[in-house]
Amino acid sequence: MTTAQLLTRIRADLRRRRLDALLVTQPENRLYLSGYTARDTSLAESAGVLLIPAAGPPFLFTDSRYHLQALAEAAGFEVMLYPRGLLVLLEKLLPRLGIRRLAFESHAILHATALALMKTAAGVEVEAVPLTGLVERLRVEKSEEELVAIRKAVRLNEEVFRAVFATLRPGLREREVALHLETLMRQKGAGRPSFDTMVASGPNGALPHAVPSDRELREGEPIVIDMGLVLDGYCSDMTRTVVLGEPDAKTVELFRIVRRAQLAGMERVRAGVAAREVDRAARQVIAAAGYGDYFGHGLGHGVGLAVHEAPSLNRRNRKHLRAGMVVTVEPGIYLPEWGGIRLENMVAVTAGGCELLNTDVTFLDL
Amino acid sequence: MTTAQLLTRIRADLRRRRLDALLVTQPENRLYLSGYTARDTSLAESAGVLLIPAAGPPFLFTDSRYHLQALAEAAGFEVMLYPRGLLVLLEKLLPRLGIRRLAFESHAILHATALALMKTAAGVEVEAVPLTGLVERLRVEKSEEELVAIRKAVRLNEEVFRAVFATLRPGLREREVALHLETLMRQKGAGRPSFDTMVASGPNGALPHAVPSDRELREGEPIVIDMGLVLDGYCSDMTRTVVLGEPDAKTVELFRIVRRAQLAGMERVRAGVAAREVDRAARQVIAAAGYGDYFGHGLGHGVGLAVHEAPSLNRRNRKHLRAGMVVTVEPGIYLPEWGGIRLENMVAVTAGGCELLNTDVTFLDL
Repeated sequence: MTTAQLLTRIRADLRRRRLDALLVTQPENRLYLSGYTARDTSLAESAGVLLIPAAGPPFLFTDSRYHLQALAEAAGFEVMLYPRGLLVLLEKLLPRLGIRRLAFESHAILHATALALMKTAAGVEVEAVPLTGLVERLRVEKSEEELVAIRKAVRLNEEVFRAVFATLRPGLREREVALHLETLMRQKGAGRPSFDTMVASGPNGALPHAVPSDRELREGEPIVIDMGLVLDGYCSDMTRTVVLGEPDAKTVELFRIVRRAQLAGMERVRAGVAAREVDRAARQVIAAAGYGDYFGHGLGHGVGLAVHEAPSLNRRNRKHLRAGMVVTVEPGIYLPEWGGIRLENMVAVTAGGCELLNTDVTFLDL
Repeated sequence: MTTAQLLTRIRADLRRRRLDALLVTQPENRLYLSGYTARDTSLAESAGVLLIPAAGPPFLFTDSRYHLQALAEAAGFEVMLYPRGLLVLLEKLLPRLGIRRLAFESHAILHATALALMKTAAGVEVEAVPLTGLVERLRVEKSEEELVAIRKAVRLNEEVFRAVFATLRPGLREREVALHLETLMRQKGAGRPSFDTMVASGPNGALPHAVPSDRELREGEPIVIDMGLVLDGYCSDMTRTVVLGEPDAKTVELFRIVRRAQLAGMERVRAGVAAREVDRAARQVIAAAGYGDYFGHGLGHGVGLAVHEAPSLNRRNRKHLRAGMVVTVEPGIYLPEWGGIRLENMVAVTAGGCELLNTDVTFLDL
């Protein structure tokens, strides 16, 4: 969808709910709607917020540090600065715009900030109404333009992975490998990693979220590499588990179970299928092999402007997949003290099944 | 203070406010109190929370991904997992612990999460009470042990800066320089940058928060380099503005004004002085030189486990500095189209003045 189409849908949604405007504080929503690429330092230090009135042109509010960037990037948005803070600006502007019911993103604003907003709004007879997910729901189904961007991110991710994989040898430290991956992705044009790169060798792989350590890679043990990057705003996320030299029998056994689980999950992906059905298809393979207790996390998650977004593929999510959704399929087995195996690809949901976005097959089929 | 002393102070504070426990969701507060170093993916994806009862031992709640790390790091904390989410755990545990009034960190929890917490608490007759800044107030004054860690971070920062400075030459791109700085800091042991490294050359320096671009460095123009790193949890933050070849007269003029402003600010730092007095001392120098409109941000901010924390040095902060606070002093002049000059050092407030934590003088005195 174009920005104009997106705004039209949001305005219609607001009118349906008898809301006069939406205040957008969620950073990926802000980028999605406006094209403004500045990043928040933290939730307490915003690079700006959008105001989308149900009628009339949209605004981008920011401070002087971001003024030039906002003007250059947020086409169609009126840029206003808040030298004395957002609330002082809203206090004046909301009545002038005739806004009486203002929605805000309850899931993307600090509680203390929301309280202050509600108080300021009440002072000028505006009701501030908590809302969640209105823009996120639009983001879930990717446009063809977005899919093109995501494919590019995945392709670059694989290129970086393979280049670094070729340099792996016993004695290298996990931390060095992670740094090499993150440096190379940026040298090749990625803005940044989409999350902290994970390189977990041997027993360290038993922690699904291990932090790269000074441990040296050794021959024969599984090395879990989970990495992602951001290219032109869109994220990739990919995991490979690799072995230097010959994997032992146990590694091969677990590897094949995880790979079969992944294939079973991908096989189940199709528009109209419940998210939890996909999780179940993969989980059953691992459970049937006797390792059900060692696959503690969900099977996957949506990927787009955020590396973790809707939909979640887990045991509980009854919602149905829709064409254009992009999700990871990443089963794993984690054995305390021994280590872990995880394999992760990204797929785009289609009417008839899914498009596998990854082409890399490094160590996918032992 | 030791962890035990910190907990004693928090418990006393809770009892004074007739609160039975504090739920700690702020990530640096969690690290400060528990030693648990896991990082949140985002405010919506926590690596765990603490519960500090006014009486009895403290808890760290997390999920299975972080279990081993939590056990290894959070000495003295009882680690509990929440396989079905934090609220399900609290629903059972709070009544069992006899907690009737539970404080939560209103400034470090999403509004939607806080609403869900309040609802769950009410269901078991617990009142959830929003609170702000209780732990942050303890963090503001650094212990000698913390100052040692901060000095180390500053020293490493300067070492990295100087090594990269020696490689600067016309034709290098801003992005390459930023990447070199971030790669080298990690090779030398820093965990990560404390914020996205800024390298802004020529006109790009007019944006106080410029993002490194593909622009090539040129001779004679000011290049603003703002960088920070995290070493053993503690942050550094430093800005130098450098010139390749000979600076022109205007650059030298602005440079000297900013440097005099910085010295005037540092000169004013002392325990008992209002934060805004320090800002004013520096701002007056820039205003007197006719560039007051081109210094749009505050003079500085506290640094510790977070790269931006209390106290803020700005026009409005009337609070008095106290010994052990660590703040940046970073005046700047930003001229649209021309570029910018910013100089930033870190100082520790003492009874009689301040300890300058930086020793690097690269391009400080033109």
